[in-house]
Amino acid sequence: MRSMIKGIKQSELFTKTRKEAPADEVSKNAELLIRAGFVHKEMAGVYTYLPLGFRVLGKIQDIIREEMNGIGGVEMMMTALQKEEVWKKVGRWSDETVDVWFKTKLKDDTTLGLGFTHDEQLVNLLTEYISSYKDLPIYPYQIQTKFRNELRSKSGIMRGREFVMKDLYSFTRTQEDLDKFYEEIKKAYMRVYTRCGIGHRTYVTFASGGTFSQYSHEFQTISEAGEDNIYIEENKGIAVNEEVLTDENLSEMGIKREDLVAKKSIEVGNIFKQGTKYTDPFGLSYTDEEGNKQSVYMGGYGIGVTRLMGTVVEVLSDDKGIIWPESIAPFSVHLLLLGVDPDVAKEANIVYESLVSEGVEVLFDDRTDVSAGEKFADADLLGIPLRAVVSARSVKEGGIEIKKRTEEKGQIVPISELINLLKTKIL
Amino acid sequence: MRSMIKGIKQSELFTKTRKEAPADEVSKNAELLIRAGFVHKEMAGVYTYLPLGFRVLGKIQDIIREEMNGIGGVEMMMTALQKEEVWKKVGRWSDETVDVWFKTKLKDDTTLGLGFTHDEQLVNLLTEYISSYKDLPIYPYQIQTKFRNELRSKSGIMRGREFVMKDLYSFTRTQEDLDKFYEEIKKAYMRVYTRCGIGHRTYVTFASGGTFSQYSHEFQTISEAGEDNIYIEENKGIAVNEEVLTDENLSEMGIKREDLVAKKSIEVGNIFKQGTKYTDPFGLSYTDEEGNKQSVYMGGYGIGVTRLMGTVVEVLSDDKGIIWPESIAPFSVHLLLLGVDPDVAKEANIVYESLVSEGVEVLFDDRTDVSAGEKFADADLLGIPLRAVVSARSVKEGGIEIKKRTEEKGQIVPISELINLLKTKIL
Repeated sequence: MRSMIKGIKQSELFTKTRKEAPADEVSKNAELLIRAGFVHKEMAGVYTYLPLGFRVLGKIQDIIREEMNGIGGVEMMMTALQKEEVWKKVGRWSDETVDVWFKTKLKDDTTLGLGFTHDEQLVNLLTEYISSYKDLPIYPYQIQTKFRNELRSKSGIMRGREFVMKDLYSFTRTQEDLDKFYEEIKKAYMRVYTRCGIGHRTYVTFASGGTFSQYSHEFQTISEAGEDNIYIEENKGIAVNEEVLTDENLSEMGIKREDLVAKKSIEVGNIFKQGTKYTDPFGLSYTDEEGNKQSVYMGGYGIGVTRLMGTVVEVLSDDKGIIWPESIAPFSVHLLLLGVDPDVAKEANIVYESLVSEGVEVLFDDRTDVSAGEKFADADLLGIPLRAVVSARSVKEGGIEIKKRTEEKGQIVPISELINLLKTKIL
Repeated sequence: MRSMIKGIKQSELFTKTRKEAPADEVSKNAELLIRAGFVHKEMAGVYTYLPLGFRVLGKIQDIIREEMNGIGGVEMMMTALQKEEVWKKVGRWSDETVDVWFKTKLKDDTTLGLGFTHDEQLVNLLTEYISSYKDLPIYPYQIQTKFRNELRSKSGIMRGREFVMKDLYSFTRTQEDLDKFYEEIKKAYMRVYTRCGIGHRTYVTFASGGTFSQYSHEFQTISEAGEDNIYIEENKGIAVNEEVLTDENLSEMGIKREDLVAKKSIEVGNIFKQGTKYTDPFGLSYTDEEGNKQSVYMGGYGIGVTRLMGTVVEVLSDDKGIIWPESIAPFSVHLLLLGVDPDVAKEANIVYESLVSEGVEVLFDDRTDVSAGEKFADADLLGIPLRAVVSARSVKEGGIEIKKRTEEKGQIVPISELINLLKTKIL
């Protein structure tokens, strides 16, 4: 986890909640995130991550990092600026082939591309390092900003022109090693979605493959806000996308068409066996134990990190606002001071300092010019999992009124119990 | 600190050391970093950070984060894609005014800029959040990728066309508050350079100011690789750059021209009081306690993060390779297994596992097809602060031979002592 401030006082936070999102914003995720002050819209598909949004993004990134490191991933960082010659090798430089290029020029008029993905660049780079069977397998990945010149961008942070993506690539000696890793990362992806709170709605979905496998797989999260349509066989826990919805495929999978239920969904990840599609043209090969030159097998595995954040908002919000799961919430507790009584304010400050010194992440609504009603509404909009209220009444009754974001009614607990609950995470 | 793998075995790391850097690479920092496998050159001024380099970059970023958070900074993340209208406000859109623009186009032919800095974008954004004296002061910052279309880029990672920068901006109610914060961040910057191991060579340097102050300040690190020239008055601990080297300025500072020593230096940071230069044109103002509208005062504070990494390499290397300070080294220990004796290998693996389980960051050279001489040369090139050798001899003598990168001779210690030394950081 990157170095994060434990406690922030709302009086010192420059973002504020708003009643309305910009008029041109039609997606629920961006509307809520803008109203709550998590992101700022620079233009369609281009969003600044404000302090609260940046914290959420950081936590999602760290969950992904842990899961990728756990299966052998090694993190690095490639560049946005990319050379024409690298992209020409497999024929993806032309705007006719790739319709989302952003291009720019050096002073000497050389045209560069802004990376929309990094397959070619990485394979090209690895030709300088990989030559022997001893060098494989490897699983490099990055969490980095990508650029895609989308014609339309109306899904908030779910379809960005500039967005954060995790892309991992596997390079193995054989198709079998590729197949094996592919199954491993499939499980790691599901762990990511589960830890981010959307696992129960996310399906591993059959999609069209390529030369090196019949299918690729998408991770699709059921949501009315989705741009995709998938077909679910609930009993088998299988989903297929439209591309592969043929009688032949269904019969192979042992699925009857009448058992499928159509749902709208958001693609939160995809995994693909590229085999030697990129490695052969670049001459990325290795010498085996017998001294023979062999092709390297490649797989590519993507998670749209900002899209994942938007999906959580789409899926877990209610009519009052966002509902962050504890794992990626900007703070664990939203502490609210109600009223202007100096003794109550003093008590609230003691609670704040105690929580922070115990290592709990707290957002403290210490504002004195905002009504209780507004503070409650803001807390619901911001969606921090636990609300803790210090008021004249709570102090009189011996503590702090705590309430989960998902609960209707709260309860009064002494501060020692609050700290204990937070530290043992049994809330 | 972001989630990082504690231990990596060199046999599993895809990067390798090389004898030669690319022929077109003339800077020492890039030459060493490429040879050691920390970065890969994509084109002049554009470098991929390979796993080892990425670790160093992450550690530098976290030091900067801690220091910025410590003086009230709040992290966020702005975008690379930026709108013409925002940049036109203060007249920095045109290529005649700003000669480092990279520009690109949306599908509808709208031209966008790739951010070379973020003053305008941030001020524009804040007009939606700042309106009252209660909203100030604020100190937002980001660590983010910037793009500058340099005509020439021959200083390795010290002058990137695509590079990582930390930019913090202060917004205060008065010039006095600006002046006060300016002095605070000046100290925080020096703490960053000290923690990164180059504080002893880095001078706060007077540079030209603007409407809102006579001077701005640069942080200049003495190095023959520098593109700048500064003049140091060693007794007073003051440095001035060429722009402000006038008799009038010197007499004001109480400096005699003959006491100045000229040195080449690298600008590793700069701080500037912008006052109301950007805030007024954008209408970023606040209402004070009496209901009067007032200008917001702005300051801008930059550290080139990748340049700082390059500077450390320039300044702390020797003819054998890089010498990382412990604080930003990719690993704390470089463990070397020598020879092919299975008992010795077993012992080395036990040492590796013990260190990792104790939370020590270890790079383990477990390769079996590389000679002792090559391993020693690699260790010197990579520059991890402590080398720990397990060989038939060291095992016979009861432990591990440890040697600092800066020392000539090592000593044999038992593993318990090595762990103890590392944990108490008294090495």
